[in-house]
Amino acid sequence: MSPQQKLEALRTQMRAQNVQALFIPRADEYMGEYVLHHNERLRFATGFTGSAGMAIITLDSAAIFVDGRYTVQVRQQLSADLFEFYDLDNQQQLMFLAKSLKQGDKVAIDANCHSLTWVNNTNASLQILGIELAALPNNLIDAIWQDRPQPSQLPTFTFSNESAGATSIEKRQLIAAEINKHDADALLITELDAISWLLNLRSLNIPCLPVVIGRALLYANGDMVFATNTALLEDDVSAHVGSGVRFIEEADFNKEFAALNGKTMLADANISHAASQLAALDAGIELINATDPTALIKAQKNPTELAGMRQAHIKDGIAVTHFLAWLDEEVAAGNFYDEGVLADKLKRFREVQPGFKDLSFDTISAVGGNAAMCHYNHKDTTPAVMPDNSIYLVDSGGQYLEGTTDVTRTIAIGQPSSEHIKMVTLVLKGHIALDQQKFPRGTCGAQLDVLARQHLWNQGFDYDHGTGHGVGHMLSVHEGPQRIAKNTNSVPLLPGMVVSNEPGYYKADDFGIRIENLIAVREMDNDFERPMLGFEALTLIPIDKRLIDKTLLNENEINWLNSYHLQVQQTLMPQIMDKNVQLWLAQATSEL
Amino acid sequence: MSPQQKLEALRTQMRAQNVQALFIPRADEYMGEYVLHHNERLRFATGFTGSAGMAIITLDSAAIFVDGRYTVQVRQQLSADLFEFYDLDNQQQLMFLAKSLKQGDKVAIDANCHSLTWVNNTNASLQILGIELAALPNNLIDAIWQDRPQPSQLPTFTFSNESAGATSIEKRQLIAAEINKHDADALLITELDAISWLLNLRSLNIPCLPVVIGRALLYANGDMVFATNTALLEDDVSAHVGSGVRFIEEADFNKEFAALNGKTMLADANISHAASQLAALDAGIELINATDPTALIKAQKNPTELAGMRQAHIKDGIAVTHFLAWLDEEVAAGNFYDEGVLADKLKRFREVQPGFKDLSFDTISAVGGNAAMCHYNHKDTTPAVMPDNSIYLVDSGGQYLEGTTDVTRTIAIGQPSSEHIKMVTLVLKGHIALDQQKFPRGTCGAQLDVLARQHLWNQGFDYDHGTGHGVGHMLSVHEGPQRIAKNTNSVPLLPGMVVSNEPGYYKADDFGIRIENLIAVREMDNDFERPMLGFEALTLIPIDKRLIDKTLLNENEINWLNSYHLQVQQTLMPQIMDKNVQLWLAQATSEL
Repeated sequence: MSPQQKLEALRTQMRAQNVQALFIPRADEYMGEYVLHHNERLRFATGFTGSAGMAIITLDSAAIFVDGRYTVQVRQQLSADLFEFYDLDNQQQLMFLAKSLKQGDKVAIDANCHSLTWVNNTNASLQILGIELAALPNNLIDAIWQDRPQPSQLPTFTFSNESAGATSIEKRQLIAAEINKHDADALLITELDAISWLLNLRSLNIPCLPVVIGRALLYANGDMVFATNTALLEDDVSAHVGSGVRFIEEADFNKEFAALNGKTMLADANISHAASQLAALDAGIELINATDPTALIKAQKNPTELAGMRQAHIKDGIAVTHFLAWLDEEVAAGNFYDEGVLADKLKRFREVQPGFKDLSFDTISAVGGNAAMCHYNHKDTTPAVMPDNSIYLVDSGGQYLEGTTDVTRTIAIGQPSSEHIKMVTLVLKGHIALDQQKFPRGTCGAQLDVLARQHLWNQGFDYDHGTGHGVGHMLSVHEGPQRIAKNTNSVPLLPGMVVSNEPGYYKADDFGIRIENLIAVREMDNDFERPMLGFEALTLIPIDKRLIDKTLLNENEINWLNSYHLQVQQTLMPQIMDKNVQLWLAQATSEL
Repeated sequence: MSPQQKLEALRTQMRAQNVQALFIPRADEYMGEYVLHHNERLRFATGFTGSAGMAIITLDSAAIFVDGRYTVQVRQQLSADLFEFYDLDNQQQLMFLAKSLKQGDKVAIDANCHSLTWVNNTNASLQILGIELAALPNNLIDAIWQDRPQPSQLPTFTFSNESAGATSIEKRQLIAAEINKHDADALLITELDAISWLLNLRSLNIPCLPVVIGRALLYANGDMVFATNTALLEDDVSAHVGSGVRFIEEADFNKEFAALNGKTMLADANISHAASQLAALDAGIELINATDPTALIKAQKNPTELAGMRQAHIKDGIAVTHFLAWLDEEVAAGNFYDEGVLADKLKRFREVQPGFKDLSFDTISAVGGNAAMCHYNHKDTTPAVMPDNSIYLVDSGGQYLEGTTDVTRTIAIGQPSSEHIKMVTLVLKGHIALDQQKFPRGTCGAQLDVLARQHLWNQGFDYDHGTGHGVGHMLSVHEGPQRIAKNTNSVPLLPGMVVSNEPGYYKADDFGIRIENLIAVREMDNDFERPMLGFEALTLIPIDKRLIDKTLLNENEINWLNSYHLQVQQTLMPQIMDKNVQLWLAQATSEL
């Protein structure tokens, strides 16, 4: 079907349902960063491939709403004859509806693809115009999507208690205690990583995100209902999760609410899809809008998870070290590859590591000006070949059975310029300052963010992204609730949390720099007047000394780098068998 | 009257009014940091002299609620036979009422002494118990206060347009534009410094706070009604404020609301006393709860105000330099004075500066362990004599016609210990880091706070107060809305704002350290990729080098100190006539 045919087919559906408009968000019922391939309805309906956006179709017009990252791309992918273009902004969506519809009209939604908060707020605004949201029982896009892909149906497998550090029963009791603190009877859990963590189960159906798929209800006694494709459960799953877990089909989930009539259920109205919450309300359940307590407890890795994270980072260090040694050798031999070849080569070094299951996100392999685009993906375009005398940015990570990694290194290709070296050094100074900072309990990431930016700011530079995101344990590489960024975030950094430390600098159309380690929050054991927390660097990969101007570092910073490199060398060297790679590692980690 | 007699007299009043309890806050109708002497009702009724607190009197019990600073003091000042002691916390107050009262009871308040938000929230909670707040027309304490002090009746005088940098008409037009942005008809202004700034008027009725006293209404056309004791207005006031200002008596203020029937009025429900807002509601005015826009505009000093602040700091620098030179000479001669003598001596050096009007706050003059108490005032106790081989903390400031100052220096008395020197140096490193930091527009103080703490945190130390508060222009030495502190504050630092930079360290019962300059936010004129803001130090007073361990400073920090001291020397020296003081200043500002 052509784009125009799709719109007309949707309008035929809309007329049949007697609705005058239709919201198409880029979201599915799991409301996560990843949308399952067979749920990419915005992409199917409009042709827009960005990772965030909304379309509104009316009977005689259509509009698409995207954020600043996609304003150019959306105009390339969609015809201005068919779509009006707006910012991804609730108010602009409401204004578009206000000008397109009249009193008494209805706007269709699939309540599985919107949060309850969004539904309530949008309803309240549209009511002022006499317009009504209509949650349809079926998704109108699915009705016209003839060649819709099949869902991935890989098995749901056990994640060992030895890796997890706690059994599912133990974890469910922990969260049940939180449910009881709210005097609630149950907790709606729609975040896939929360369910996976609670049940110690994983699957590989979503690229880079080894979560199980479904929705769940945890009762105040620790029992749990997991609604999923039960045909995919491996045989040992039931015994592994322990007593108290029922597995049902997703289509049967809402039937569970009947037994909770007159009781209370915790649900995060901002995060969870509206459909289950609306069904619960229909069943006479009182909703308590609260953050899913699983997130904060999951974020504080237990000692076993932390040990696994360290182990995963050693494997990752070996893989990336082999890649960097290979890269230097190729460049020295005059072999310059394109970004895709480099990303594939790096992937192959990771794949041979035992326990490797997947990448943790699409590798960002970017040369020259491509590296200045923070969301660049060489797969979206013709991969560029690295020029000589430039810098190469590679941001990549793996999902290992022991844990998840995420690292960025910026690498000299030939002779970097003095500007490259100055800017890498300023970025490194910020990275070191954050890594070294100790701080009292109660400190939030937003308070520490400036440490990574201070040297850039003092010379008139900045970077337009956060400094650090949380990272899961063989789960999402972007995990809340903590973060380190300019924006206020009231979640304190707590022992066991893993965050990235990734300051950068980007010169449009020229080059991009980022230096990223994962760091774990830990209690300092110094004999201090006041107890302090601090960080432990998990990532063990050399930082390219050819891009560092030693004269811009103070003694403390030089000591940090030398001691970091010594640790990298001592940890990785015994596990590297290739003589050339050994030699490369020795010089890459020698004293500055 | 004895404390018990006062309570019984109040209970007689309460019975006559048919109320079963009475709130006595430490506040008056101006709801500011300072409570006018004749409005110190909590102190009169209970004997508690702290700067924050609440009492609740019932017919057969009484309770006092104070914060952590006063838990010891309150038990010394009040008898446990008469009062129960609680934390200064709304919930504890409600719990006390819940246990003391029964359904149908009434709790008296003077709505002039509580914010509307407090009244509404307290009402909502008490209603659940069937208890009612009763806003009485007269304050019950006043009815029994026979020897109540007379209000200070010093004149209200003009603050020259040359000092203010803008006429009252210009300022009122600025704020009227903000009123119009809210589609409102008027703005209730109860903050005394806002009224003083808008009218370019001052008075000296409140110690250290040269504001006029009254309440005001600013209309959307820029006209203004100022309700005050009109007998105190100097003859030239009316011409000075320009057209559109009416002066009325405070008692007549609420009559103004009648003309606004059916119109809307901006008022800050969190800040302004409830009485005027309740009267406005009674008069059929719709209230819009919003921050008084005057605060943010006033906080961004205009070029004339900034020039005045610089001038005031030169005068202050001369005064404090004379004091520090004198102090060193006395200590060298073996003369050790008490904290009160030192504070008085310092005041005399300030008083001789032309344009000096008042101190900007009670001088904190503290030796030894006294300096570890952040709210120490030698007037509350027997002033201590400085011991030899110790450090002396002096936090002081002046109100000059050109502007307001606030400075803290920590001074070596004899031979300080290595611990003193180490801790002063760590504090200084934080002070320097904050002073030097550049930052993009939109940055809030909470983001920069860590810079002042980083070196302390890294060695296990911290200080339990904010790093910086805003400062007014010949107005309050504590001025919002910006601040630099751990707590989130969403007001960005903007050019022209003046804040303090005052990291410290306190070792209980031993010593206290603070190094405070005032700094002004300014646009950096560097040729930067991104425009940055930065700070300009206003305070020009030597930092005691005897307390600095040079080996703990990096080159950049040493350069900062030397260049700061050079600026102090070059600015102050030409204005110092006393040879001995010149010699002292030369050595105090010589290179480290």
